Amino acid sequence: MPQILEQEQTHSRLKAVNDALNGGMFVHVRRMLHSLPAYDVALLLESSTPSARPVLWQLIDPDQHGEILEELAEDIKDSIIREMEPEHVAEAIEGMESDDLAYVLGSLPESVFQQVLSSMDEQDRHRVEQALSYEEDSAGAMMNTDVITLRPDVSVDVVLRYLRLRGQLPEGTDKLYVVDKQDKLLGEVSLALLVSSQSELEISEILEVDVAPLSAEQHDSEVAQHFERHDLISAPVVDGNGCLLGRITVDDVVDVIREDAEHSLMSMAGLDDEEDTFAPALKSTKRRSVWLGLNVCAALLAASVSNMFEDILSQLATVAILMTIVPSMGGVAANQTLTLVIRGIALGHVGDSNARWLLGKEALVGFMNGMLWAFTLAAVVTVWKGDWHLGVVIAVAMFVNMLMAGIAGVMVPLTLKRLKIDPALAGSMMVTTFTDIIGLLSFLGTATVMLR
Amino acid sequence: MPQILEQEQTHSRLKAVNDALNGGMFVHVRRMLHSLPAYDVALLLESSTPSARPVLWQLIDPDQHGEILEELAEDIKDSIIREMEPEHVAEAIEGMESDDLAYVLGSLPESVFQQVLSSMDEQDRHRVEQALSYEEDSAGAMMNTDVITLRPDVSVDVVLRYLRLRGQLPEGTDKLYVVDKQDKLLGEVSLALLVSSQSELEISEILEVDVAPLSAEQHDSEVAQHFERHDLISAPVVDGNGCLLGRITVDDVVDVIREDAEHSLMSMAGLDDEEDTFAPALKSTKRRSVWLGLNVCAALLAASVSNMFEDILSQLATVAILMTIVPSMGGVAANQTLTLVIRGIALGHVGDSNARWLLGKEALVGFMNGMLWAFTLAAVVTVWKGDWHLGVVIAVAMFVNMLMAGIAGVMVPLTLKRLKIDPALAGSMMVTTFTDIIGLLSFLGTATVMLR
Repeated sequence: MPQILEQEQTHSRLKAVNDALNGGMFVHVRRMLHSLPAYDVALLLESSTPSARPVLWQLIDPDQHGEILEELAEDIKDSIIREMEPEHVAEAIEGMESDDLAYVLGSLPESVFQQVLSSMDEQDRHRVEQALSYEEDSAGAMMNTDVITLRPDVSVDVVLRYLRLRGQLPEGTDKLYVVDKQDKLLGEVSLALLVSSQSELEISEILEVDVAPLSAEQHDSEVAQHFERHDLISAPVVDGNGCLLGRITVDDVVDVIREDAEHSLMSMAGLDDEEDTFAPALKSTKRRSVWLGLNVCAALLAASVSNMFEDILSQLATVAILMTIVPSMGGVAANQTLTLVIRGIALGHVGDSNARWLLGKEALVGFMNGMLWAFTLAAVVTVWKGDWHLGVVIAVAMFVNMLMAGIAGVMVPLTLKRLKIDPALAGSMMVTTFTDIIGLLSFLGTATVMLR
Repeated sequence: MPQILEQEQTHSRLKAVNDALNGGMFVHVRRMLHSLPAYDVALLLESSTPSARPVLWQLIDPDQHGEILEELAEDIKDSIIREMEPEHVAEAIEGMESDDLAYVLGSLPESVFQQVLSSMDEQDRHRVEQALSYEEDSAGAMMNTDVITLRPDVSVDVVLRYLRLRGQLPEGTDKLYVVDKQDKLLGEVSLALLVSSQSELEISEILEVDVAPLSAEQHDSEVAQHFERHDLISAPVVDGNGCLLGRITVDDVVDVIREDAEHSLMSMAGLDDEEDTFAPALKSTKRRSVWLGLNVCAALLAASVSNMFEDILSQLATVAILMTIVPSMGGVAANQTLTLVIRGIALGHVGDSNARWLLGKEALVGFMNGMLWAFTLAAVVTVWKGDWHLGVVIAVAMFVNMLMAGIAGVMVPLTLKRLKIDPALAGSMMVTTFTDIIGLLSFLGTATVMLR
């Protein structure tokens, strides 16, 4: 629990704000909110209950609204925007970076969207329309169009004088882009390089041409990999002709990296990535019932397998008592392998070239752990129930199921990936259902053969 | 599957390398490896089997060794370093950034460590000894000591001339730090600000004093939160007296963010964060058997609960057939809530101030999903088994277990957090065991009362 310090701070703040809200001390709350940076106010809103959020939002200085919207999680951002007046939205988004701007506007109902758009100035409207022309999770939607470009035939000294005249650079500027007359990207010059170069040199003499620009259509996960691969702080985005469209900065990429990494965790429990922890109960119930519904089918399938073995179950209650152990162990083992493979796929480690090796390895792990727990449980059950036949039955079933668990843990995610289905979403329930069925079949089947 | 493009590239490369290796075309492999950036070579090594890794490593140009070590996952880095000759390690780490340097040296056996240290030059040795004096996951171990500092009383023009004389800046430099004669941090000047300021201004007139430096003792997760909170590209690190020690850049922070996000995923399956997908089977078997051993105990506990109901089980095989459904549904529901709470804790959303509200909400979700699936299964079972008594039994048990699942899904992680135990590691098995037991108790208990 490394984040305890920061967390405790947030929660003592949240408690103070809640106490003040409940006590009706709105002026006090307003003052507290005003003194916090946007990130912390966003965290407060995200940690609040749905009923407290609109009240808090009313108490926030409207000048801060834009900045806070930029920081908020999508689900919560959407619900707040839906409640805002169109003119108010137009004010809040003034000066927002184009990627956030496009997101906010994209989540407005059509009628409000037109109203907001018409209340914006020409330049902003153009930026928004451009940003909205890209897919939601593309490089185009992530980029900012506010970049400084240079021609290759000017000197370092001229550039430095130009920058001094121009004044403040766009936020997060670390590089300047060099383009020709048609806006075609020729290369880049980092500020670090610019200030450490001799002033009489021409830009064409120092520019870095090996820049590997992103295309506007690339998926944001690819953008994140590109940044990690090259340890970038910012990267240019170009169109099909190589013309510069904008740039992506690492702070937006960090959000994508976190979301991608969280995606597997949430999907494996059948949850939506953007699920709001404090969503109203009815909304959560609806979202989760789909997953539970699938599990009902899986559980009924397992029960119908047991149903095939009614004979042995009606003869020996002990078999019924022990029948949950083997499926349980198989489920845990299969989910271990599955999790490893899902992470391996996400990191780009697992693919066609090594799938067979991995399958062999995980089958071997299943074999060895199968042997280990088959013997262990055979001993435990023989002592507990005083019948070595039962011990043999559970050992056989355990071994079979652990071996199959290792194989399923590799095969299921790789097959799903080939079918272009997200392994993190469907994989866990599929392998668990599989090991439940194999576990019951092998245990009840062996019991029927050996004990009846 | 957004990363498919990049992945396919990696895997067609890996396949080509493997084919060439198996064909004995070492010169060809050497040429292929040489043409790839360090990141891609690291990915190739990570995606290779344990037996292929040493061969590949031998074929890599030794000049690239350092860069590739910097990119490798820890488990694999360790195994490669252990195989290297001390002189070779000393060569590879030359010019490495101090954080990576400290890591590599820290993972060497003591005797080799001394040998490597003695073969380094004075300055490098000093940097290493300093970096090694911090805890492994601290800001001190992440930082680089290669920073450019300024005095406040010089002009922008002088600084620009100094930088031009100095030549190439340290990699990733985006800011210069302003310190007094005792190295105490006074503030920072970004390169963007420097180049856009009038040249006659003094540094003291433009410096940004509101920098919130990190302390060298802070945990890396706190560092990551600090970067996300302030959308930083780099941040200064100071000692207890406010003296500048070094700086941390965002590319190292990105690794921490990914690791932290992956931690929950891996822990919930009882896996180590750094688990190598292609580790030898015996090593994987040993690591995973601990978790499986815990699950054996949990499964035996559940079986001993069933054992208490031997009477009803020996009278009615149908009860045995249906008894796995209720525990299965409870387990899924509890893990949904648990996952949500674990993510909420990691993001800093869930704490004392809203724990009670969240408990109420999740209990309500459990109540509603309990009602829904109680009715559904009652209908299914009544039709299937032609006995409405069984329908009532499963409905009662389902409702009780779903309600308890919601409560356990909140209470377990919060209690573990209070006890300073990682909820991601222990939580999943605890809630599953709990819902298994409650599910069996309520189903078999109700069946005993109603059907006997």
